[in-house]
Amino acid sequence: MDSWVDGQPADALSLKDRGLAYGDGLFETIAVRGGQPMLLDRHLARLAEGCSRLAIAADHALIRSELLAYAGALGEGVLKLILTRGDSLRGYAPDPSACARRILQGNPPSVYPAALGEEGIRLFPCATRLSTQPLLAGLKHLNRLEQVIARSEWQDTEHAEGLMLDHAGRVIEGVFSNLFLVRDGVLMTADLKRCGVAGVMRAELLFQAESAAIPTQITDITLDQLQWADEVFVCNSVYGVWPVRAYAALSWPVGPLTRKLQTLARALLDA
Amino acid sequence: MDSWVDGQPADALSLKDRGLAYGDGLFETIAVRGGQPMLLDRHLARLAEGCSRLAIAADHALIRSELLAYAGALGEGVLKLILTRGDSLRGYAPDPSACARRILQGNPPSVYPAALGEEGIRLFPCATRLSTQPLLAGLKHLNRLEQVIARSEWQDTEHAEGLMLDHAGRVIEGVFSNLFLVRDGVLMTADLKRCGVAGVMRAELLFQAESAAIPTQITDITLDQLQWADEVFVCNSVYGVWPVRAYAALSWPVGPLTRKLQTLARALLDA
Repeated sequence: MDSWVDGQPADALSLKDRGLAYGDGLFETIAVRGGQPMLLDRHLARLAEGCSRLAIAADHALIRSELLAYAGALGEGVLKLILTRGDSLRGYAPDPSACARRILQGNPPSVYPAALGEEGIRLFPCATRLSTQPLLAGLKHLNRLEQVIARSEWQDTEHAEGLMLDHAGRVIEGVFSNLFLVRDGVLMTADLKRCGVAGVMRAELLFQAESAAIPTQITDITLDQLQWADEVFVCNSVYGVWPVRAYAALSWPVGPLTRKLQTLARALLDA
Repeated sequence: MDSWVDGQPADALSLKDRGLAYGDGLFETIAVRGGQPMLLDRHLARLAEGCSRLAIAADHALIRSELLAYAGALGEGVLKLILTRGDSLRGYAPDPSACARRILQGNPPSVYPAALGEEGIRLFPCATRLSTQPLLAGLKHLNRLEQVIARSEWQDTEHAEGLMLDHAGRVIEGVFSNLFLVRDGVLMTADLKRCGVAGVMRAELLFQAESAAIPTQITDITLDQLQWADEVFVCNSVYGVWPVRAYAALSWPVGPLTRKLQTLARALLDA
């Protein structure tokens, strides 16, 4: 399907765009089923928080209506929204009168082997560490060189994802997923105040767990805690939940809470 | 002047470009005088190092010849080269067969008030800290949100530049400049192994100082050391050298080594 720029079909972007020049913008990757963008409110909430923290002025009602229209035309697939601070004048200083540029791209549905969800995955131990930057932590911004470098560390198909630590050795997230672990019935995921992307599926699973009276904990996670976990899984808003069965020399069974949340994620992504 | 993409006049870029999607690329900002790109070899050397460290395949001979041709057509001004990893397939994994996309943009000469160079400048104390990422430190890559946020901290014209520290409080650089200080005749600048951009003018001034038997030191710099400096200045490859006369409550005179290197930088930028 054709891409849209600011609501119009387009296949090219201004060379002055600050998304290109500085990665000055945000993005969302949204599953589309039956013409509907899945988990739309959570995607829009994260986007709005990113705009607020980066002081990017955007017309959020217009973004919502364009997402709905584009998803309706796409039908089934994955929609990517890139929001940039528009064209650059010159230098890093943003134009205070700029309004965000909206770029919509449609792709066919992601096809992952069913075995990843059924049998679970092996995580590649990425050497690339996430840097600490509280001003950007949690946001899905366009400065993603750390993920590009981390994803370049392995080419085999044996590892469906990689695990990224921060410089202090804390367990943070996958390259394109968030990570959860279960220990003594408690669902735990990394605190993303220093680095990491606060995923939409992560937020939804935390919400659903709390609604089901499953204890949750957002905290710093060490490799020791990972080792002693009863269950480990990764998630994102496109594939849902993948159990993790191995990381380096560690291994885990696919556990019952993982299966429960996987079923729930599947339902959320199959409108 | 028209921009070029891969050697051809163009005003737009593929929406799939990884520079837009992830900031997956590098750039150089080059002064052009009399149709010549100034400090070309140093710009090309930094670019080649960036390509090597990010594993971006590029035709460096072609880049050189295009820069020379573009600068010849531009005559006087500032040339910006953006080099991206080309179009994205899907996801963070780079296409191993990709060759870098070359984007050339021309701007009129930068017009800064002469007083900045003559009387010196006041540095804004940026609250935005640079994060530690040795894999990216020194490179002029396209992930520049920290600079965008830092440059948004002040709008007045009283501050021509801002000073950025790292998370440990070390003095690193300006938002778009490198910083030097002089103490007891030694020319000092920050070690950029953790963060910062290794500027072309910084490299050239270090080289020139060494050639003139001026002692140089690349080291970690504290705010205490900055306070007790005899001279402070900032530099880049467009404006040359600006003496720093104030930062927060600190102030310095414009010193003789600053003037000497400023004259030298001016000569380097006035072919």
